[in-house]
Amino acid sequence: MAWVGNLIRFSAIKSASSPSITAKPLILTTSPNFLFSSLSHFTTDASLHNHNRSSASPTQYGGLGPTKPKEKPRVVVLGSGWAGCRLMKGIDTKLYDVVCVSPRNHMVFTPLLASTCVGTLEFRSVAEPIARIQPAISKEPGSFYFLANCTGLDTHNHLVHCQTVTDGYTMDPRKFDISYDKLVIALGAEASTFGIQGVKEHAIFLREVHHAQEIRRKLLLNLMLSDVPGISEEEKRRLLHCVVVGGGPTGVEFSGELSDFIMRDVRQRYAHVKDYIHVTLIEANEILSSFDDRLRRYATKQLTKSGVRLVRGIVKDVEPQKLILNDGSEVPYGLLVWSTGVGPSPLVKSLDLPKSPGGRIGIDEWLRVPSVQDVFAIGDCSGFLESTGKTVLPALAQVAERQGKYLSILLNKIGRAGGGHAYGAKDVELGDPFVYRHLGSMATIGSFKALVDLRQSKEAKGISLAGFISWFVWRSAYLTRVISWRNRFYVAINWATTFVFGRDISRI
Amino acid sequence: MAWVGNLIRFSAIKSASSPSITAKPLILTTSPNFLFSSLSHFTTDASLHNHNRSSASPTQYGGLGPTKPKEKPRVVVLGSGWAGCRLMKGIDTKLYDVVCVSPRNHMVFTPLLASTCVGTLEFRSVAEPIARIQPAISKEPGSFYFLANCTGLDTHNHLVHCQTVTDGYTMDPRKFDISYDKLVIALGAEASTFGIQGVKEHAIFLREVHHAQEIRRKLLLNLMLSDVPGISEEEKRRLLHCVVVGGGPTGVEFSGELSDFIMRDVRQRYAHVKDYIHVTLIEANEILSSFDDRLRRYATKQLTKSGVRLVRGIVKDVEPQKLILNDGSEVPYGLLVWSTGVGPSPLVKSLDLPKSPGGRIGIDEWLRVPSVQDVFAIGDCSGFLESTGKTVLPALAQVAERQGKYLSILLNKIGRAGGGHAYGAKDVELGDPFVYRHLGSMATIGSFKALVDLRQSKEAKGISLAGFISWFVWRSAYLTRVISWRNRFYVAINWATTFVFGRDISRI
Repeated sequence: MAWVGNLIRFSAIKSASSPSITAKPLILTTSPNFLFSSLSHFTTDASLHNHNRSSASPTQYGGLGPTKPKEKPRVVVLGSGWAGCRLMKGIDTKLYDVVCVSPRNHMVFTPLLASTCVGTLEFRSVAEPIARIQPAISKEPGSFYFLANCTGLDTHNHLVHCQTVTDGYTMDPRKFDISYDKLVIALGAEASTFGIQGVKEHAIFLREVHHAQEIRRKLLLNLMLSDVPGISEEEKRRLLHCVVVGGGPTGVEFSGELSDFIMRDVRQRYAHVKDYIHVTLIEANEILSSFDDRLRRYATKQLTKSGVRLVRGIVKDVEPQKLILNDGSEVPYGLLVWSTGVGPSPLVKSLDLPKSPGGRIGIDEWLRVPSVQDVFAIGDCSGFLESTGKTVLPALAQVAERQGKYLSILLNKIGRAGGGHAYGAKDVELGDPFVYRHLGSMATIGSFKALVDLRQSKEAKGISLAGFISWFVWRSAYLTRVISWRNRFYVAINWATTFVFGRDISRI
Repeated sequence: MAWVGNLIRFSAIKSASSPSITAKPLILTTSPNFLFSSLSHFTTDASLHNHNRSSASPTQYGGLGPTKPKEKPRVVVLGSGWAGCRLMKGIDTKLYDVVCVSPRNHMVFTPLLASTCVGTLEFRSVAEPIARIQPAISKEPGSFYFLANCTGLDTHNHLVHCQTVTDGYTMDPRKFDISYDKLVIALGAEASTFGIQGVKEHAIFLREVHHAQEIRRKLLLNLMLSDVPGISEEEKRRLLHCVVVGGGPTGVEFSGELSDFIMRDVRQRYAHVKDYIHVTLIEANEILSSFDDRLRRYATKQLTKSGVRLVRGIVKDVEPQKLILNDGSEVPYGLLVWSTGVGPSPLVKSLDLPKSPGGRIGIDEWLRVPSVQDVFAIGDCSGFLESTGKTVLPALAQVAERQGKYLSILLNKIGRAGGGHAYGAKDVELGDPFVYRHLGSMATIGSFKALVDLRQSKEAKGISLAGFISWFVWRSAYLTRVISWRNRFYVAINWATTFVFGRDISRI
C-alpha cells in the first residue's frame, strides 16, 4: 500500500510569505510549466468528428463478427434478470466468451424491491451489478456487457440486432450486430395493463429500481404537499390515498410495507397529516390466490388490522387523480401502484419463433427453441410448447433462477463436448431434461409477519407457516440468496438501521 | 412488542381441500363480506372537487396568519442549508414555533457530496432530513416544514410569499403566505456561470444530491457506451474525458475522487476502456487559491501523479460535446462538471433590502438586516454591510454553520426576554456581536491524501498538513460533524465497504 509511505509526511509550516521556508520547501515544489500540461491527445481537426452520422435514425456500426473455430465460442445473453444473471454466473468462462445485452447493467433482487419504496431497504442494496455476478464480462477480452436493447434476431445468420440505450444524451443511439454461437433469450416479461386507459400514464409499476425510486419520491412529495396551508380536507385525503391494484405477492408486500411505514414512521414524522393517509388494495378476485386458503385468510386479517382496505373490484379507467371501477364508483388517489401480473413484451411477440400458450417463446424440455439452431429461452419470456405436454410455468423468480442454472450446466456440458460453436451441438448428448420442482412461496405482509407456503402446488399437501417465525424464515432466506456479500451485508445493515432509527425520509 | 405474541403462532397444515382441516381452521377465518370494506370515506360528488382552480397560474390559498400575543412567536426560516439547519437545530422550541420553507426537505452535507458522485459514499448518507435535525417541525402543532420556494417578502406586513414545489405532477403549484415574528433568510447562493453560453445546458454543478446523482449516472453511462462495438477511438476518448472547471476545493475534491475511482475501480471493472478515461481540471488562476502555497504545490503534484491533467485556461463557450477556451483551443468532453464559485441568486438580487458589496443581503454585526424589523440573514446569501467596517465572509459551510449557531442563541435570548413576537425585540439587549474565527480549511485530493490548512487567514501563521495524516484527520473531522448518528454510521459503513468491496457500479 503506497499511501503508508505518506504516513509520516506531514509538517508544521509557517506562512508561505516567510522567505526562509520558501527556500527549503518541506513538501515539494513543481515548476508551473510542468503543472499545466497541454491537451495534446485531443485534436481540433474537425474531420475526425465527421462520422457519417444522422440524428434522425441510429447509425449503423459494425459489431462482433462470427467467432473463428480456434477461438472460444460466444454465448450471447439477452436480458439481465434472474434467468440471464443466474445463467451468466454459472457459465464456465474458460469454455465460452459471454456477451450480455441489456438496458440495465444490474440485476434487480425483485423479492426485496417493495421494501425499497418506503426506505426499509436502500435501492443499491437490491441491485447487483452484472460485472459482480460474472466478472469475466469486464475483464476477458472477448466478453462484454452492452448497454443496449435487442431490436431483432436473424436466426438464419446467427445474428442479434441491437441498439444502444443513451437516455437521450451524450450521443445518438447506435445500431450494431452481434454474432452468436449460442443465444440465450432471457428478456423477461412486461407488466400487463389489460388495455386499460391511463395505466401507463398515471400508475407506477413495481418491477425496476427506478419504479421504486419514483414511488418513494412521490409518496414523500404527497406527504409534504398535503401539509401546505389552505389545502382542503378532500384534497389532503386524495393526496395521501395510496392505491395498489393487484393482490398478488408484489401488491400485498408493497401494501404491507406501506402500512408499516405509516404506522412506524408517518405517525411520528408527519404528525400533522397522519390521520389522512390510507392504503387501499384493489383486487378483482382474491388476494394471494396461489397461496394456501388459510394463509390467505391470515394475510387478509393482518392487512385489515394494519389499516389496509381490501376492495374487490375491476378497474375500468385511470385518470390523473382518480380511477374508476367497473361498478362506476370513483376512487381518488395520490399514489397509484399497478401490479396485476405480467405478459409477453412487444419484442417477444414480434419474434418469428414458435410460441407457447399465452404467447411466450416456445421451448422444449431442454429449454431450446425448436426449429432454429443454438437458441435457448429461459425465464418469464419462455414457456413449454404444447407439444412437450408440460404446462407453462408461472412467472416467478424461482423458475427463472432454476432455468438459468440448468442451462448454464447444459451449455458447459456442450462446450466441454466440443459443441460450443454454432451448429456444433448436433451430436452432443444433452442428458436429463429440465424439471421444475416448486420449493414453496413466500410473501411478507408487514408488521414482522410473513407467509410461507411450502406446498409444491396448489393441490398438494405440505407445510404452511404464518406469523413472526415465517417473517424470520423469510428474511433469512432472502438474506442468504442476495447474491454478493456486499449486498447481503447492506441488506442486514439497512434492516438494522430501519429497526433502530426508522426509515429515512430525505426526498433525494 | 405485539408481534412477539405471534412467535408461536405457526402450524403444519394440510391442503385446504381436506374437509377435516377446513372445519377447524388453525389460523383464522374471516367472513368475505367483512374483508372487503367499502370506500365510504370518499365521495364521488363532483362538486367537492370543484375547487376554484386555474392551471394557468398558481391558486392563491390562505396561509399562516399572525400569531396572537398569548401564542408562541413564530420563526420562519427560508432555506435548509448549513445556516438554516444549524439555526433550526439550536432554536428552543419551547420559546418558538419554527416554520421552514425550502424546496428540499433535507440538508446536504456538502463537504462529502463529491464522494457520492463515484460511489465512495451513498447519496442518502450525506442527506440529513430536516425533521431529524429539528424534530419539532413534524410534531409541534405550530411548527411546519413546507416544500415550497419563497417568491417574495412583504417586510412591512411581516409576510413571506411562497409557492409550492410540485415537480410538475400530482397538483398545480399553490401560493400561500406566512406571517412571521422573526424571519431568517438563509437562501444560500447560486453557482456562477459568468454568463458563459451553454454552461447551464451542458455542464453539471455539484451543489445538490441530484447533481451528484446525475454525475454518477452519466459517468457510468459513458463508461458503458464507450464499450459499444464500432465506436471510434476519438469518440471513446471524448466520452471518457471528464472535465472539471474550477480549481476550488469542490473541483479539486471531485477530481481527486474521480481519479481514485479510475485507479481503483475502472481499471478492474472496465478493463476494455480503462486506457481511454482521463480527468482534466481547468482553472483560470491557480488551484486551491485560498490554501497555503506549499499545500497548493503538494496538491498539484499529487493530482498530476494520479493522472489529473491541470490546465490553465478560461472557458469561453460550452457546446454539447466540447468546450472552447479563450485561446481558441477546443476540449471535447463526455462529462463536464462546473464549480467556479457562487453568487447571489435571482431572488436575493430581487429583494428590496440593503445589499453588501457583491450583492448579498446586507447585515449588521448581529446578523440583522437593518432598515426592516425582525429580519435576519445568514449564510452565503448574506454579507456584512460596508457600514460595519467588516469584510464580507467567504461562502463556506463553516461560516454558515457558525452564523446559524450564533443566531439561534441570539433568538433564544430574545425569546426568553419576552421579545419573540413581531416588533417585540426593540428593548432587548443583544449582547456580543457575531465574530468569525476561521478554524482552517480542509480538502481531500484522493489517494488517501488531504490538505489541512489551520491558519486563520491567508496571511496568518499556523499549521498546515498534507498527506495521509491529514486525510485521516479530515475523515475523522467529518465523521463527527455529520449530524445524526444514523448518517455517521452510514458514512463509516460506506467507507468500509468501498475499501473492502470497491465502489458500486449499478446504474440505477
